[in-house]
Amino acid sequence: MIQAFGLYISYTLRVPVATDQTYPRINGDRLMQKLMDLASIGAIDGGGCARLALTDEDAAGRDLVVGWMHELGMTVTTDVIGNVVGTWNVGSGAPVMTGSHIDTVRTGGKYDGNLGVLAGLEVIATLQDAGFIPQRPISVGIFTNEEGSRFAPDMLGSLVYVGGMPIEEALDIVGIDGARVGDELQRIGYNGATPCPGFAPHAFVEYHIEQGPVLERTNVRVGAVTGVQGISWKEVTITGQSNHAGTTPMSMRKDPSYVAAKIAVFLHDLALRYSGHQVCTVGKIDVFPNLINVIPAKAVMTLDVRNTDEQLLSQAEAEIVEFLHSLAASEGVEITTRYLARFEPVEFNAQVIDIIETNASTFTQPVIRMPSGAGHDAQMFARICPSAMIFVPSVDGISHNPAEYTAPEDLVLGTDILLHVLLQLSTIEEFTQ
Amino acid sequence: MIQAFGLYISYTLRVPVATDQTYPRINGDRLMQKLMDLASIGAIDGGGCARLALTDEDAAGRDLVVGWMHELGMTVTTDVIGNVVGTWNVGSGAPVMTGSHIDTVRTGGKYDGNLGVLAGLEVIATLQDAGFIPQRPISVGIFTNEEGSRFAPDMLGSLVYVGGMPIEEALDIVGIDGARVGDELQRIGYNGATPCPGFAPHAFVEYHIEQGPVLERTNVRVGAVTGVQGISWKEVTITGQSNHAGTTPMSMRKDPSYVAAKIAVFLHDLALRYSGHQVCTVGKIDVFPNLINVIPAKAVMTLDVRNTDEQLLSQAEAEIVEFLHSLAASEGVEITTRYLARFEPVEFNAQVIDIIETNASTFTQPVIRMPSGAGHDAQMFARICPSAMIFVPSVDGISHNPAEYTAPEDLVLGTDILLHVLLQLSTIEEFTQ
Repeated sequence: MIQAFGLYISYTLRVPVATDQTYPRINGDRLMQKLMDLASIGAIDGGGCARLALTDEDAAGRDLVVGWMHELGMTVTTDVIGNVVGTWNVGSGAPVMTGSHIDTVRTGGKYDGNLGVLAGLEVIATLQDAGFIPQRPISVGIFTNEEGSRFAPDMLGSLVYVGGMPIEEALDIVGIDGARVGDELQRIGYNGATPCPGFAPHAFVEYHIEQGPVLERTNVRVGAVTGVQGISWKEVTITGQSNHAGTTPMSMRKDPSYVAAKIAVFLHDLALRYSGHQVCTVGKIDVFPNLINVIPAKAVMTLDVRNTDEQLLSQAEAEIVEFLHSLAASEGVEITTRYLARFEPVEFNAQVIDIIETNASTFTQPVIRMPSGAGHDAQMFARICPSAMIFVPSVDGISHNPAEYTAPEDLVLGTDILLHVLLQLSTIEEFTQ
Repeated sequence: MIQAFGLYISYTLRVPVATDQTYPRINGDRLMQKLMDLASIGAIDGGGCARLALTDEDAAGRDLVVGWMHELGMTVTTDVIGNVVGTWNVGSGAPVMTGSHIDTVRTGGKYDGNLGVLAGLEVIATLQDAGFIPQRPISVGIFTNEEGSRFAPDMLGSLVYVGGMPIEEALDIVGIDGARVGDELQRIGYNGATPCPGFAPHAFVEYHIEQGPVLERTNVRVGAVTGVQGISWKEVTITGQSNHAGTTPMSMRKDPSYVAAKIAVFLHDLALRYSGHQVCTVGKIDVFPNLINVIPAKAVMTLDVRNTDEQLLSQAEAEIVEFLHSLAASEGVEITTRYLARFEPVEFNAQVIDIIETNASTFTQPVIRMPSGAGHDAQMFARICPSAMIFVPSVDGISHNPAEYTAPEDLVLGTDILLHVLLQLSTIEEFTQ
């Protein structure tokens, strides 16, 4: 706490400490109302949302949030990959940016992504209500196709924003339903004119639900996120020999369904062998023609492999490649793979992590430092400006599921912390790390 | 051959032996033309057919073949499950019946089923051209939904024909696309008035491609089929916990995709352990929501398990049930199963098998006796009349695949044999076995 206080003295006098009763607190009811309003778009059974990127539902969600930005008097720009950035143009210098995404997986929850965007708006609304002017502009970003459920790779919008993929390549990406990113952007009217790469913010902080069980299990309400796991996404296509399920002796089969199963089991066992932060998932598998009495001709599956350690991640990938080679030979099938995404583990800025941890500690204790198991737009911004993230707990660690839930008091807590963090970041002239 | 000749002397004088040059031979060009004409309906890339049961394509195929029946002056009836029986009303007594099906799997070939129907018509055309009147009527059946690719169980039409399932239950079956059998029958105009169970033929012989590699591998052109493997079809539904693929530690997962893979590998290994005539196939698997970065909530897969030995088949089923129980417990998922079909192995009539083998031997040697790996309508008729089957080779054993192929000379050979066999069966007053 002394250290925290020590940091606060570098603020301008207008920045109060969290324990100061005169300090503006965010309006929890208003935040919750916006979360529920947005969740009503693309609502699905069980209380969740289906707003796959660049669908009509995503467009309706964007329209709603952009309307709120205008109500707050923000300057709203849309760039060539459909990222929306709303800026409260006060103070001077490069804006401090927060934000996240509002696309969801097909069976998503109410909070994943949405929280980070709406909490940013709530911070601005709170400061405006209090007549509090920060030293720099504050921007809130909505980044296109963060989930990657419709178009690969995930985090596409922020990737293009930071210059990680040429816009032409991004617009030509074809999704799982055959739709092209460029066409869909145009169709929903979010093919903006602002060029990419975009401007470099002064700093970037993303506020997000953990989507995992660590905070809840350790009974901690806030995590200062130190970095993001590396991700390897591969699509594996197994081509065998379609045939009659009754008349083809086992010894004469070239069965892609069996080979896919062997790969899924191998992947699972690999994750257990590596332990630590290693996770592996087969979330998608399609066999063709997918009939009960036909040995499939083909199977297409995805491998989602993640680790916080780049060396272990590469080692896991190499093991998988070797296994696929031996399996193709022993089972007489053809196996081809292609990367859908590959991101090395990311380390966030130490100074920003410190600021998050310190501010959070004025509200709640203990605060822990933790890596993120999921990919986030903040990891892209880490390439162009000091960045980090704030996590609040997910009940039962559930996310990407309609049952995703975070207690309102935790949602509010994190938003208050975000407000503090953004204000402190706006006072920093130059980052030392 | 002496034995064959010995059998032939029980014929009426009007039945010549195969080696008799005055004996009418079927018209191979006419047979091939009809096969190709029917194959043009629902044609797919690679030379195959997609005429799933009771679809528009199936209806168009039926219309074509029924037209040919009328051209041959046959009496055509349609029963309440849509089976079409065309009868050449000559001679006296219960008809000798042949036939098969013209529905296909989604990626089917030109010959599976179609051959048995069109060869029956070719036999009648040949006899009519030769002015040859058999002693009994000859019927040719087209049986509904033999493949079971759209509606389970397979062999539905012949099952209902022989009284194995009440018509009300059959009409209420809902297919993979949500369509109801009764509605689809009505929609395509094949909801006939002839009641089921249908009349018992004097005998039933089905002529079919082997759909397996045994004949080709042993360099034999004709098989006299002794029976049909037992079939166990189960649908397995695995319900777990959908969650984020990046943030959920392996130890906290309830992953239906992994469990499905374990089951598929277990099934394959079981088939290898049992060896002999045991085959196991996972032809269909669907995971939900089927997204790369989401641990699935649910997986639904089919298990196709077959053996010629009922005891071994039951033992395999019991092993699978036990494995599913232990897997549900160890992985924390719920596993439910339901039968889609269950048929015990069938033994064909010894006297009919003899007649097939003997007649075939007058055309080609050697002829082998063999079980069928696939289910066929003949196994249903075995419940109500003396029945058996004639097989000709499938190149590379390939079937349920556009590449399915049988040499025209083998197709013609089998049809000539079918003609002989039907004529001999029509002369038998009473079967001794």
